[in-house]
Amino acid sequence: MDQDVLKDLLERLGKGEKTVEEVIERLKTLPFEDLDFACVDHHRSLRRGVSEVIFGEGKEVSDILSIVDSLLDHEERVLITRLSPDKAEAILKRFPEGTYHQRSRLLTLMKRPIEINGKGTIIVMCAGTSDIPVAEEAALTAEFMGNEVDTIYDVGVSGIHRILAHRERIMKASVIVVAAGMEGALPSVVGGLVDKPVIAVPTSIGYGASFGGIAALLGMLNSCASGVTVVNIDNGFGAGYAASVINRA
Amino acid sequence: MDQDVLKDLLERLGKGEKTVEEVIERLKTLPFEDLDFACVDHHRSLRRGVSEVIFGEGKEVSDILSIVDSLLDHEERVLITRLSPDKAEAILKRFPEGTYHQRSRLLTLMKRPIEINGKGTIIVMCAGTSDIPVAEEAALTAEFMGNEVDTIYDVGVSGIHRILAHRERIMKASVIVVAAGMEGALPSVVGGLVDKPVIAVPTSIGYGASFGGIAALLGMLNSCASGVTVVNIDNGFGAGYAASVINRA
Amino acid sequence: MDQDVLKDLLERLGKGEKTVEEVIERLKTLPFEDLDFACVDHHRSLRRGVSEVIFGEGKEVSDILSIVDSLLDHEERVLITRLSPDKAEAILKRFPEGTYHQRSRLLTLMKRPIEINGKGTIIVMCAGTSDIPVAEEAALTAEFMGNEVDTIYDVGVSGIHRILAHRERIMKASVIVVAAGMEGALPSVVGGLVDKPVIAVPTSIGYGASFGGIAALLGMLNSCASGVTVVNIDNGFGAGYAASVINRA
Amino acid sequence: MDQDVLKDLLERLGKGEKTVEEVIERLKTLPFEDLDFACVDHHRSLRRGVSEVIFGEGKEVSDILSIVDSLLDHEERVLITRLSPDKAEAILKRFPEGTYHQRSRLLTLMKRPIEINGKGTIIVMCAGTSDIPVAEEAALTAEFMGNEVDTIYDVGVSGIHRILAHRERIMKASVIVVAAGMEGALPSVVGGLVDKPVIAVPTSIGYGASFGGIAALLGMLNSCASGVTVVNIDNGFGAGYAASVINRA
Amino acid sequence: MDQDVLKDLLERLGKGEKTVEEVIERLKTLPFEDLDFACVDHHRSLRRGVSEVIFGEGKEVSDILSIVDSLLDHEERVLITRLSPDKAEAILKRFPEGTYHQRSRLLTLMKRPIEINGKGTIIVMCAGTSDIPVAEEAALTAEFMGNEVDTIYDVGVSGIHRILAHRERIMKASVIVVAAGMEGALPSVVGGLVDKPVIAVPTSIGYGASFGGIAALLGMLNSCASGVTVVNIDNGFGAGYAASVINRA
Amino acid sequence: MDQDVLKDLLERLGKGEKTVEEVIERLKTLPFEDLDFACVDHHRSLRRGVSEVIFGEGKEVSDILSIVDSLLDHEERVLITRLSPDKAEAILKRFPEGTYHQRSRLLTLMKRPIEINGKGTIIVMCAGTSDIPVAEEAALTAEFMGNEVDTIYDVGVSGIHRILAHRERIMKASVIVVAAGMEGALPSVVGGLVDKPVIAVPTSIGYGASFGGIAALLGMLNSCASGVTVVNIDNGFGAGYAASVINRA
Amino acid sequence: MDQDVLKDLLERLGKGEKTVEEVIERLKTLPFEDLDFACVDHHRSLRRGVSEVIFGEGKEVSDILSIVDSLLDHEERVLITRLSPDKAEAILKRFPEGTYHQRSRLLTLMKRPIEINGKGTIIVMCAGTSDIPVAEEAALTAEFMGNEVDTIYDVGVSGIHRILAHRERIMKASVIVVAAGMEGALPSVVGGLVDKPVIAVPTSIGYGASFGGIAALLGMLNSCASGVTVVNIDNGFGAGYAASVINRA
Amino acid sequence: MDQDVLKDLLERLGKGEKTVEEVIERLKTLPFEDLDFACVDHHRSLRRGVSEVIFGEGKEVSDILSIVDSLLDHEERVLITRLSPDKAEAILKRFPEGTYHQRSRLLTLMKRPIEINGKGTIIVMCAGTSDIPVAEEAALTAEFMGNEVDTIYDVGVSGIHRILAHRERIMKASVIVVAAGMEGALPSVVGGLVDKPVIAVPTSIGYGASFGGIAALLGMLNSCASGVTVVNIDNGFGAGYAASVINRA
Repeated sequence: MDQDVLKDLLERLGKGEKTVEEVIERLKTLPFEDLDFACVDHHRSLRRGVSEVIFGEGKEVSDILSIVDSLLDHEERVLITRLSPDKAEAILKRFPEGTYHQRSRLLTLMKRPIEINGKGTIIVMCAGTSDIPVAEEAALTAEFMGNEVDTIYDVGVSGIHRILAHRERIMKASVIVVAAGMEGALPSVVGGLVDKPVIAVPTSIGYGASFGGIAALLGMLNSCASGVTVVNIDNGFGAGYAASVINRA
Repeated sequence: MDQDVLKDLLERLGKGEKTVEEVIERLKTLPFEDLDFACVDHHRSLRRGVSEVIFGEGKEVSDILSIVDSLLDHEERVLITRLSPDKAEAILKRFPEGTYHQRSRLLTLMKRPIEINGKGTIIVMCAGTSDIPVAEEAALTAEFMGNEVDTIYDVGVSGIHRILAHRERIMKASVIVVAAGMEGALPSVVGGLVDKPVIAVPTSIGYGASFGGIAALLGMLNSCASGVTVVNIDNGFGAGYAASVINRA
Repeated sequence: MDQDVLKDLLERLGKGEKTVEEVIERLKTLPFEDLDFACVDHHRSLRRGVSEVIFGEGKEVSDILSIVDSLLDHEERVLITRLSPDKAEAILKRFPEGTYHQRSRLLTLMKRPIEINGKGTIIVMCAGTSDIPVAEEAALTAEFMGNEVDTIYDVGVSGIHRILAHRERIMKASVIVVAAGMEGALPSVVGGLVDKPVIAVPTSIGYGASFGGIAALLGMLNSCASGVTVVNIDNGFGAGYAASVINRA
Repeated sequence: MDQDVLKDLLERLGKGEKTVEEVIERLKTLPFEDLDFACVDHHRSLRRGVSEVIFGEGKEVSDILSIVDSLLDHEERVLITRLSPDKAEAILKRFPEGTYHQRSRLLTLMKRPIEINGKGTIIVMCAGTSDIPVAEEAALTAEFMGNEVDTIYDVGVSGIHRILAHRERIMKASVIVVAAGMEGALPSVVGGLVDKPVIAVPTSIGYGASFGGIAALLGMLNSCASGVTVVNIDNGFGAGYAASVINRA
Repeated sequence: MDQDVLKDLLERLGKGEKTVEEVIERLKTLPFEDLDFACVDHHRSLRRGVSEVIFGEGKEVSDILSIVDSLLDHEERVLITRLSPDKAEAILKRFPEGTYHQRSRLLTLMKRPIEINGKGTIIVMCAGTSDIPVAEEAALTAEFMGNEVDTIYDVGVSGIHRILAHRERIMKASVIVVAAGMEGALPSVVGGLVDKPVIAVPTSIGYGASFGGIAALLGMLNSCASGVTVVNIDNGFGAGYAASVINRA
Repeated sequence: MDQDVLKDLLERLGKGEKTVEEVIERLKTLPFEDLDFACVDHHRSLRRGVSEVIFGEGKEVSDILSIVDSLLDHEERVLITRLSPDKAEAILKRFPEGTYHQRSRLLTLMKRPIEINGKGTIIVMCAGTSDIPVAEEAALTAEFMGNEVDTIYDVGVSGIHRILAHRERIMKASVIVVAAGMEGALPSVVGGLVDKPVIAVPTSIGYGASFGGIAALLGMLNSCASGVTVVNIDNGFGAGYAASVINRA
Repeated sequence: MDQDVLKDLLERLGKGEKTVEEVIERLKTLPFEDLDFACVDHHRSLRRGVSEVIFGEGKEVSDILSIVDSLLDHEERVLITRLSPDKAEAILKRFPEGTYHQRSRLLTLMKRPIEINGKGTIIVMCAGTSDIPVAEEAALTAEFMGNEVDTIYDVGVSGIHRILAHRERIMKASVIVVAAGMEGALPSVVGGLVDKPVIAVPTSIGYGASFGGIAALLGMLNSCASGVTVVNIDNGFGAGYAASVINRA
Repeated sequence: MDQDVLKDLLERLGKGEKTVEEVIERLKTLPFEDLDFACVDHHRSLRRGVSEVIFGEGKEVSDILSIVDSLLDHEERVLITRLSPDKAEAILKRFPEGTYHQRSRLLTLMKRPIEINGKGTIIVMCAGTSDIPVAEEAALTAEFMGNEVDTIYDVGVSGIHRILAHRERIMKASVIVVAAGMEGALPSVVGGLVDKPVIAVPTSIGYGASFGGIAALLGMLNSCASGVTVVNIDNGFGAGYAASVINRA
């Protein structure tokens, strides 16, 4: 029910052309969801600020381009995740002002530079160099959403002194994203050092009994450090998004 | 190395009985961890405020009592989780001022009432009445840690209007904890309505292919709503703790 | 927003005390879901006829009794599922007119006898005698919902002649529910004989590599017979409910 | 035993060349299954109407062509499922009147247009755009089998208003097929809105802990909405087939 | 259709009261399966000799007793498997001539002693003393079915000399049943020593990563020794039955 | 210890150059396994007749050729399993008298035709046309080992009449190999019809929740038909080998 | 073949009653394994020193007592593992000189005190207090086998300073056993601090997604610290035994 | 805190510019980890001797080359694991003095030949020829770390005499690494023959229910031979490393 219909209905009531009972009856069966739709969408655009995200995997270049076109009418920034290099190349041909981040497979398009609106610094850590693509996805997502981001890479738990060497930086963070594959133990160690929200991202790095990230996922879900929460395997975007939501709270 | 040893060493330097080089050499090899221990513990007691948590499952009553005794020397509040009714009875005989929360199996002991230090309201929701014990564990943990907590129970996704009926309360929350068993879909729906941190707690409620909470856990990890993070199955405590950390950030 | 509030609002508009714009603004922000709530509930009571279902497992007797009390105000029939014998005994003490079905652990309370409103006969089959409790749960649920039900028990696929002996009855059914544990192959054989909807219910009957019904569940999901759909392990209620929905279509 | 043999046997009895006992003895050991074979096949061709289905995956083009040739002798319509584009091209070279549906990988060959014989409208919904190929497989299968089909795509549970916006269409359906990957929660929400048969199809869309569709499958099997039944992962054909069987009941 | 009906039908044909066509038509639609039923049952009683088996688990004593009663009318021997001691006691009160084998939880009732009809000796081996109950179930089942059985217990692969010490006996067997828990490696070693059928029975003996027999089951399915076949976890009965079928071939 | 050493030792005893005690001491510590080696190998060549098997997967062509060369010195027949077409081509270039069976990926080399030494006929059945490669591997292996083999393909349980149509052939078999993917139910049906050894081979045919053959494997392990034993997924060779061992017993 | 038979055979050769060829022939076919048996047993008793181990779980008290009786004839020490308190009580009634270790459920019987023959100190660590029973099983096993053992309990990775506080003791160990449940990360941290053999024991401590120790097991198998090896879940005995074997190397 | 800062601080104390209390306060909060970092690194280079390891998988050639460059400044030997042939070729172009081991995918670079510092001989065994790549990875790693290594390949448990033929060599080893795929039973047999540390490496060799090495992994974790420890699937490097650590103890 769009507002014109509603307005017309109420005007008729005002004019005495409809009784209160008739209007109530009509309101009861009107497609409330349209009312809701507008309302919710309003909320969504408010809360999302000026950015929108496209999940690139499994979408054709032509589909992505038409979504981008329609988004750029009213959005100032577009983020495309999980985009393969060849698709990125095709999209950049059309939008040469965009930036493709090869390791994290993210592509960003911005009419205006990002404004920082997060309250503190989000730290993104990872255990091994192979976890960097997932960590970068988290870091760039958080930056895109308007946060200061600091990264600490290649600090596995079998070299505990390397983690401790960064303790001061870690303790100043407002939120910490920790990506790790293999046994996925880094969030437990970090979670024990700080009292800040720790978002753990298991990565699919490993072989054999890592089972594509299951070992790391289970390790993180069973973390002995209180306050650690977990996202899906290799879900750097989700971790960065959640960190941003927390940082803007 | 306790402080006396350190003090003595430095005094000798001050008196000229040791050279700078000798002291450096000694410091290099001293058990740094004791220094660290003190330091970290200091941090821990600062950040934890005046509360401490005991995991009750698998501990004997006598063990729990002696831990409580030692904690109450310097803590103002103690929380015992996963405590069976019979153990609770034994502990309350000794500490009659304590409170046992039967559904959530938590026992709290407080010298002073809790002071609210969280910034907003934490909402704890659950999908079915059987999920309430886990939800209560989360809610009481968050309250114990100094947060305002509001609860919305029995709002499963197959009755979507019941969720929507609480939309205004939900949208005012600073952090939302969502407990659900079976297919664990509630966090996705809630996460789509708000732009606040959502912590999903899978519960072991269900039968057959729920596999003791695995179905709900997987559902939550694969949530199509961005910003949802997940804790272990039935880990109400962890969800409440994480929500509190976020709410105090 | 209950109807009185709405009525009052519209009457004020009728009286000119409110402008159309004010009413629209108010309607936009009113808790639409309450409107929806009433509406949906109306639908629900219409479609459900005069019955309501309580999942008995994990609920206290006192909780069940108070739910039954409130339901019987406006419902003519109540079905309680997964109810243990001792709870059933307590409930029957209060409602001696009820009937407890021990094998299927269902308890039914009816003010009036069931009226048949399903269009054809639902056949409930099971492979072994151990599957009968689940089959009975399906059969009694379908009967409770107003369907003619016929049962064919103990017809496993290793005695194919026993299945074929019932072929004529099977082919006359409008919907067929097939419960089986172990390898769960019966739905494939039945599905190959008829061209009617077949709802397969894996049971947890078996040992070792049956993994509590997983073998049967996987067998049914992979059925080579087109048109077979599957419900959760041991979910006789769900199968009977779905069969009833189909039979009344 | 074909009918000529049987006829000859009985004629000999009529002529007194065989005794009743000899005929009984012969009938006892005759391959009863041939009798059955004819009978069942008769039933099958009756119930199948004028269509036949070939599972294309893993079959060579030459094999498919010879099956099609033999089917078209007595069938009016042939459906080939899970057919890769290159095989489709080869088959269309021979049967240029056929139609290949690229997204759903179906190929249809028809001597006569489909006649609608289903009683109501089957609605096929899916949660995300990536689920569309599976949804299309279901929709086209149901159409091929003689049903009116309506589709509602890209209505995930994290945007609940988008689902509600289609509520009126949904409530008018006779059967609803719901395809969803990731957490697979859409069938629960839809199942809670309507009282019609809901067939849930988990898709393999997702990554990490979606485990190729297991998360969605488990979510659907554990649906809190009564009346939801489930088919195999990515089995759009099976869902469309089952929906058609229900719609023609 | 029992034989009287058939006989009557054919006699009418003989008398000219029915035409050949009428009889064919009648035969086509007669419940062929009854014919089949008789036939198959005849075969079954022939092949089964004079014994019948009841799966005792999950059956009430009263049910078992009534099945036994009906069986003993026409069978000379009854075997009840997976029978708990308390049920056994109740059954023996009624049939004091029966024998309960406590370790294997089998109960046998015989009107006449078993006659050996197997061609060679079946050897039943097991790896550890904890596997003996399953091995005994296999051994007693094979004996009950009329086979000479020899047992070799407690010969695990970590004491290879103990296996080799029995090599001569092993090599004379006609069929070998090998029960093993934990890593389930014994069938591979035995299968490498002989060229006789080896039936492997994984047992649920073990802890931790034995996962209730899965480790042994997988080990046996992956045996590097050709000719090893496998039955379900703890399925001593099935192994003994299969061995007997082979031994009588 | 080769025989020359042993002979020399005993001759010295005969000549009085060694005492009995010295010889015993020497025998005790001699590498008994060499003695055993000869002995066992003798047995192996006796029992294996004149054939040897090479597992082709993962071996280089050059490795296979050199193994074949060495085998053909003393063997009359060589079987290579799991051989890819390109490797087969290379091997046939060297041994043009060999035969490559493309569907089953077997290559056979024979100096003399196979002599039948099995006692009865081995029947190899499969459920769907996609299972034929595995069935062929079993059939050709059994033939290669000297057995009469008969095949019945494409008889799935959803078309039960097609199975029954072959009942007479099935009941005459001495051993039956049954290959099936998807729900793997065929062995249960066949096992219920006959009282002969049934060896079930799960195949990896299927998709989604077939999990590469796990569904079929579990179905077969949980078969309600006594006497069914199981081999690894896609292990046609193992099934044919085991059937041959049974058929020659 | 016992030595008397062998001696007699050789004496006959010495006396000329047997030819060398006859003796060789006889030796070829003699049950070599008896020879081997003696030999191996000799080795076993040598290497095992003066101790023997009985796995107590699933054994009756009477069985255990008779094994102990027979062992004490020639052994100086007996270790019984996984013994329940009630069985222990019964055994101690007979052997009051024994010692039952309640937490680790070990019972030891010694004629003489243990002599230390291990070369260094074995350190047994565990992550949480709930892991102590498994750690104690390892520690007491290693002590029983003649090793100096030192224990460091309750040092989880979320309190890294507590681990570091023991660094000096840890670095002096010759072998380290590390028991941990939940995420099982402690071996990775310890393995990164030292260059000594680290044996990781996953424990079943945890809940939900710890899956009875699987999470810890996978974490340890995927440890990023080189040199960590793993034993079965809760296998404290195995870890202590392996540590002892290494320490005596 | 680098040493200059520390030195300056202490010198000020020495000069009386700082009090002991001030220095203690400063030391308490100084970044102890830097101190630790130096210390630990010192230990690491001591214990690692003159070698360093690079995990090659997933690293770009350019990254590997720059790591090698920096390592060769202060290391005498570099080992690169899991290196594909094409990357190896590129690296050898730059370092032609290196050696690439194709089967094990290891590349070694050495300024000086390896010096043997292990105490005994490490034996590396494997069950099948397909396990050789993993076995070689273990053997070459152990050699690279300064150990005598002996290899025994292709000795599966289904040919027990082939294992026994090597018994003397096996019993002389100081540590034994055993690689096996399929059922993974070899470590149990070897562990029963010797009383030396046995490190089991499951390989991913097998098909069907081997599940990429899970069957072998579970078999080894459940080994009935005491003293067997296990590493990750295909982790030849880890096994060789652990064996070396034990051999140098």
